[in-house]
Amino acid sequence: MLGKIRIVLMETSHPGNIGAVARAMKNMDISSLYLVSPRAMPDDSSFGRAAGASDILDSLVLVDSLQKAVEGCGLVVGASARNRRIPWPVMNPRDCAKEVLAKAAVTDVALVFGREDRGLSNDELQQCNFHVHIPANPDFSSLNLAMAVQVICYEVRMAFLSMLDGVDNGSSIASIRGAKDQGWDELPATADELEGFFDHLERTVKSTGFLDPENPRQLMSRLRRLFLRADIDKVELNILRGILTSVDKLFK
Amino acid sequence: MLGKIRIVLMETSHPGNIGAVARAMKNMDISSLYLVSPRAMPDDSSFGRAAGASDILDSLVLVDSLQKAVEGCGLVVGASARNRRIPWPVMNPRDCAKEVLAKAAVTDVALVFGREDRGLSNDELQQCNFHVHIPANPDFSSLNLAMAVQVICYEVRMAFLSMLDGVDNGSSIASIRGAKDQGWDELPATADELEGFFDHLERTVKSTGFLDPENPRQLMSRLRRLFLRADIDKVELNILRGILTSVDKLFK
Repeated sequence: MLGKIRIVLMETSHPGNIGAVARAMKNMDISSLYLVSPRAMPDDSSFGRAAGASDILDSLVLVDSLQKAVEGCGLVVGASARNRRIPWPVMNPRDCAKEVLAKAAVTDVALVFGREDRGLSNDELQQCNFHVHIPANPDFSSLNLAMAVQVICYEVRMAFLSMLDGVDNGSSIASIRGAKDQGWDELPATADELEGFFDHLERTVKSTGFLDPENPRQLMSRLRRLFLRADIDKVELNILRGILTSVDKLFK
Repeated sequence: MLGKIRIVLMETSHPGNIGAVARAMKNMDISSLYLVSPRAMPDDSSFGRAAGASDILDSLVLVDSLQKAVEGCGLVVGASARNRRIPWPVMNPRDCAKEVLAKAAVTDVALVFGREDRGLSNDELQQCNFHVHIPANPDFSSLNLAMAVQVICYEVRMAFLSMLDGVDNGSSIASIRGAKDQGWDELPATADELEGFFDHLERTVKSTGFLDPENPRQLMSRLRRLFLRADIDKVELNILRGILTSVDKLFK
């Protein structure tokens, strides 16, 4: 599905940027690059910036018009700063990525990026089904070309991985916050194990004199709150029990 | 709130990358940059790549340890490739951004990025509350440093703008797909206006002979479906009516 998506660069000035775009694309597993009349052809600086993505440069397609670059594409999206004279349908990168991915199931899709200094012309923008706008700082809104490609391709990849997660119920992009999340390396401690720990902890801090039974304040409540919210695993709990036991031995 | 967020770069090798990071930050309206023991100090190449973000370079903070860079921060997040020996809590950039923004209401937050060639050390990663992982192509997972900063700062900005939208019901990042979306330049055509247009269209295509009343097939259904889903505005509808009228005149 990512294979149906092509990145089109219009009249790029700096060959280094072409390489940086190739790297950004490959990082997100998108590999089809079209150049429309670049001002300078890819050179050593392109391959330098591409790092390990030279395969994308080796297989790029060179054409002399936007029309040729988008041939066969059922969806054409142009990167744009807002505030055009005739406003075109415009999406943020997240909505755009979902749309691109959905359409890439059916047809080839082109994502078109303009010149470093002045983006896409009105004429070029009007060859697009819709525009995508990165909501940058209005006081400093011009992203480097490869940065813009990186952000858009990142969103496409996030949409792609979200879709995979939906299909196979995997966890390719799920965050892992603690022991109760899929992907953690140990099983979570259970409620009864935690209660055993709290009992032990209370006995130990009484024996060290830290907890005064005559004036317990909120000590155990605060300790319970801490360890209950920490989403602790069995190994961690065993370590804590071991520490308590090592303290207990000092009193034997 | 974005002002409470600092970007920390560990032992960066290439001054050009420092400039590219500054530009990426300013594009997303994040301005506080800390350098921990850079291998080479910012130079002309930094200012070149920073483009208009030299103010961020001018006000950067130079320190000689990660501890100093994160001083005062209630939340420290480290950028990481996965698969560490001891897995740490890890979030994807989107979840991370929401967390960072929520915590930035209460405390300073540090986002820490490692060296170009080998990221953050295990020791440095273990100074973090959690890690953030960009779900890159597993076969080519190493993003350029400034690209990684761009992606994370972009997500922080998206979270920030989503929050603003929630508060003031504005539409700072809402996509605008057609005439019925807030932000379109003209009012949507209404159902009665569209019915008037369909009547007119049918009369005209009958008069040109394109629609045969004896064999209308699905012509009008298909035209209705097209214009009803196009989310058309009043000005567009008037243009279409004008075209029909100009055709009608040929028969007078």
